[in-house]
Amino acid sequence: MSETAKPAPGHPRVGITEIEGFVTRALASAGIPPEDAIQVAALMAEADARGGDAHGVFRLPQYVKQIQSGGINARPNIRILSDRAGSALVDGDNALGHLVMKRAAELAIEKARQCGIGWVGTRRSNHAGPAQLYARMPAAQDMIGLYFCVGNANLLPPWGGTEVLLSTNPIAIAVPGWQHPSIVLDMATTNTAFGKIRLKAQRNEPMPEGWMIDRQGQPLTDPKRASEGFLVPIGGPKGYGLALMVGLLAGTLNGAAFGRDVVDYTVDSKTASNTGQAIVAVDIATFADLQAFKQKVDEVWEVMKSSPTLPGVDEVRLPGERSARLYQERMTHGVPLGAELRKVLDELADRLGIQRLR
Amino acid sequence: MSETAKPAPGHPRVGITEIEGFVTRALASAGIPPEDAIQVAALMAEADARGGDAHGVFRLPQYVKQIQSGGINARPNIRILSDRAGSALVDGDNALGHLVMKRAAELAIEKARQCGIGWVGTRRSNHAGPAQLYARMPAAQDMIGLYFCVGNANLLPPWGGTEVLLSTNPIAIAVPGWQHPSIVLDMATTNTAFGKIRLKAQRNEPMPEGWMIDRQGQPLTDPKRASEGFLVPIGGPKGYGLALMVGLLAGTLNGAAFGRDVVDYTVDSKTASNTGQAIVAVDIATFADLQAFKQKVDEVWEVMKSSPTLPGVDEVRLPGERSARLYQERMTHGVPLGAELRKVLDELADRLGIQRLR
Repeated sequence: MSETAKPAPGHPRVGITEIEGFVTRALASAGIPPEDAIQVAALMAEADARGGDAHGVFRLPQYVKQIQSGGINARPNIRILSDRAGSALVDGDNALGHLVMKRAAELAIEKARQCGIGWVGTRRSNHAGPAQLYARMPAAQDMIGLYFCVGNANLLPPWGGTEVLLSTNPIAIAVPGWQHPSIVLDMATTNTAFGKIRLKAQRNEPMPEGWMIDRQGQPLTDPKRASEGFLVPIGGPKGYGLALMVGLLAGTLNGAAFGRDVVDYTVDSKTASNTGQAIVAVDIATFADLQAFKQKVDEVWEVMKSSPTLPGVDEVRLPGERSARLYQERMTHGVPLGAELRKVLDELADRLGIQRLR
Repeated sequence: MSETAKPAPGHPRVGITEIEGFVTRALASAGIPPEDAIQVAALMAEADARGGDAHGVFRLPQYVKQIQSGGINARPNIRILSDRAGSALVDGDNALGHLVMKRAAELAIEKARQCGIGWVGTRRSNHAGPAQLYARMPAAQDMIGLYFCVGNANLLPPWGGTEVLLSTNPIAIAVPGWQHPSIVLDMATTNTAFGKIRLKAQRNEPMPEGWMIDRQGQPLTDPKRASEGFLVPIGGPKGYGLALMVGLLAGTLNGAAFGRDVVDYTVDSKTASNTGQAIVAVDIATFADLQAFKQKVDEVWEVMKSSPTLPGVDEVRLPGERSARLYQERMTHGVPLGAELRKVLDELADRLGIQRLR
């Protein structure tokens, strides 16, 4: 993969360490204890490194606003409410979601090491960045990771309905490979994300059919009319079903928000979101010799790659392949940050009285 | 729901007990020990009762053929290969899949009772009927059930590819409700099932775009040309990703078939399929008071139902709603069996020298 490590042309790049330092300064200046700020900054920078551009430093201004408005608790007491050999419930005390989820994932891994599997749910958590970050934590410990969470804004109705009662509730699953990267799925349960719709609007381009429907159930292709319609779940009723089950597993089961309780923190920065998440760690050792399993995962990678392709498709891709390539490139060359985001972050720095990103 | 318990007009109905008796006779006559035959018959009849028409008694002739050809082991020694507090691996010894999965689900439930969660994988299993049967087993014990399995025929290529390397690898999740039925998702990872395509061909109707693509990647709408194309995964690359991850979790992890190893038992009844499955039981008690949780699940049901609907949609439906209605109706009035299926089953009875379905 060395030839892919050359940076793609585009926006000026900022080093990962620089992003981490900047996020740490900003969060600390907003009142987050330094050791917590460092942990969150590392995960936010990792989000950017892995290509989750809408879930990394991009979210910093919003988090700072929530902390300053009292919507996020800067001095939380994250604690385990219920603890059994293989499962636990964590109360996030309205902390930054990254802190809650890191704790939850560590607990799930510990349980999996002891008894083969760990399932940990969270309540009173917050937005924690891209789903793959947490599914990757067990994978980094030679386990399989699964992560579900209730998204922070309701954007789609139940199938056939017109009231937005569901979020894009994402699912991430990570399986470690041997020579090849881990196979990592990180997907929302809708055909597209809202960010792509905003981009189409900026560019004055129509949306393809299948992204949105209007209140009559007809395809909506004008991105400027996005507020008149709804996102379309993958496979129609199937994606609705998946979003609903994820809401039950990550929200309702944990005593966290789901349905009409969901708080959109990008609109309301004062109210605690009571975000719910679930992380599962599966110890591979129960099922197989670790190295033999990872080599089999490599074989799956190679078998998929070996498929002939449709006209116009250069090669089959694996889930997590793009992210692995970006990670390698961005850890070396930094993360490209657009001028608009850069400006927002500079303004944030000035407002907080901290040093800007270099 | 009492008004829905009236049978819909249609094919003549056969009582559940009668189906159970018939399947038991057929399997026993093919060499399955009577106590095993009774267990499998109960699950196959339940599949029909719950509306899984293509996964109940419909499959009996195929199973009998496999048993008689040595493709399924009639006298298996199903055993636990690896056992930890929260996870286990079961070797099905090439038994009928229902027997393997029943054992696996019972083990997962026992583990969840002890330590909060149980994850049990199977290898050397076989087709076990509709996914929902097994996700419902933990739900019947006031737990949440999740089930994944590798389908028994490869029907789709990896996204962008043209070699069929993936099955429709289904996912089922069951969450128990209080007054309302359990919410139960049972879905394949493709937009449609092959059965529906056969039906369109029979009826000389075109398929809607999105069901299949041809080898150029173009929509294929003529069901008579189905063999020239591929099923389309839900959400394109997302459904491909889901099918792949399910294959890794239920197949590769368990040392079961996935990718080029998958044996289509409807074509090859002699070779052991090495089917892999995974069942997860999550004990609700770790996270919530059981009754309070089930009442919250009822609330989710009602909130979804309360959504206004798109033009032409009478009401929002919940996953598992249709199945619950059919179950109530069919347990009372029997399962409608078409003349063609009836004929096939009569021929099977005559061949085996057993009493026909009454």
